Amino acid sequence: MGRLTIWGVEGIGEITPQDQLGKIISDACRQEPNGPLQNNDVLVVTQKIVSKAEGRLVAIDANDPLSHKQLVEDEAVRIVRRRGDLIITETKHGFVCANSGIDLSNVERGYAALLPIDSDKSARRIRDIIGATLGVSVGVIISDTFGRPWRKGLTDVAIGVAGVAGVVDLRGTPDSLGRIMQVTEVAVADELASAAELVMGKSSGVPVAIVRGVDETWFRNSDIGELVRPPQEDLFR
Amino acid sequence: MGRLTIWGVEGIGEITPQDQLGKIISDACRQEPNGPLQNNDVLVVTQKIVSKAEGRLVAIDANDPLSHKQLVEDEAVRIVRRRGDLIITETKHGFVCANSGIDLSNVERGYAALLPIDSDKSARRIRDIIGATLGVSVGVIISDTFGRPWRKGLTDVAIGVAGVAGVVDLRGTPDSLGRIMQVTEVAVADELASAAELVMGKSSGVPVAIVRGVDETWFRNSDIGELVRPPQEDLFR
Repeated sequence: MGRLTIWGVEGIGEITPQDQLGKIISDACRQEPNGPLQNNDVLVVTQKIVSKAEGRLVAIDANDPLSHKQLVEDEAVRIVRRRGDLIITETKHGFVCANSGIDLSNVERGYAALLPIDSDKSARRIRDIIGATLGVSVGVIISDTFGRPWRKGLTDVAIGVAGVAGVVDLRGTPDSLGRIMQVTEVAVADELASAAELVMGKSSGVPVAIVRGVDETWFRNSDIGELVRPPQEDLFR
Repeated sequence: MGRLTIWGVEGIGEITPQDQLGKIISDACRQEPNGPLQNNDVLVVTQKIVSKAEGRLVAIDANDPLSHKQLVEDEAVRIVRRRGDLIITETKHGFVCANSGIDLSNVERGYAALLPIDSDKSARRIRDIIGATLGVSVGVIISDTFGRPWRKGLTDVAIGVAGVAGVVDLRGTPDSLGRIMQVTEVAVADELASAAELVMGKSSGVPVAIVRGVDETWFRNSDIGELVRPPQEDLFR
């Protein structure tokens, strides 16, 4: 296996509705001190700037700390758990997360950012623009920060993918003792999102990271369905 | 934020009980083509070789595919879910995972590998030996591969930590619009474990990875309690 290098893309300013996000990322990547983008780089793009570019900001009452809670229910297909102000929902996309993925941080006061309607499509659009402007074929992951049961702390996961696998199926690959392994489906897109988060921080204004050195066999058509477990297969809904 | 580089450590062979794992890793790191270990590198070590070195292998009936199921119950403090052969348990350590973390892959036929008794202690021991033999202060994470509810595929997480934070608390850090953020506790040890998995593969026999470029403020005393959510705080047990 190779060596992985991960760094944040500098120079992406505040994003506003109607901004051509793919173009802005492409321009920023052109200035990269680490050299131009290469084939089989993975771009990890945080959900917040995708939501902003796609006009997914909704006005809320800035003086009412719970004014976005109705939005949370509107964006949900199911309330999975509720305790006090904390609401865990299943979103229209099939994600199970706090507050239907709606959040107020890094958004102008008086607004809430909803998740993109179709983050696979958002990822494909960015991938296509990078291909057209820079002439390279990259993978794109839209990432968001989710909690999880049983463990403290948040990790970044993929909510949209284009050109790079969501899950890599190692079923049937012999283990190091030469026997057939039973089941190892690795959620590489989630691991890539988590790895990228390590160079982004939460408040440093670096909403895009590049991962270089990813296994070339992981580049292919993909969609977030690889990572979303249908309710009927889930033991925890 | 800096640039992160991640690569697997070559040359660590099969590990057997009584092997001095810290010494073996230290020797392998000495041969590193990427140069010697540096202060504030993070070593991610997979659970399997720790379990092997610590003699956590248990003989099972190789001809009975369910012979390790009694072990699963012995290692559990609670059965969280059961469906067919799949058992999700809470282990003595507080981890919620399939089969109490017991697995048969990359283990000699007729044996099952139990989780280390105290992976923080395992991590500290490796960290201390690296410090004594190579004169550098590193963080050590013991990683394992867990499933999760709601999402398909497995990701690597931390089951033991030494010298590097489990969770970094960004509460109170201003966001990019200068306001105080509400809650962002990032599970950096889990994200580091996931990042390392990307260069290890599951069957390639690379059980240790080095992460270089980690934020220097994350190096401090730590334990896995930072990442294990107590049952009474959990909405999903």
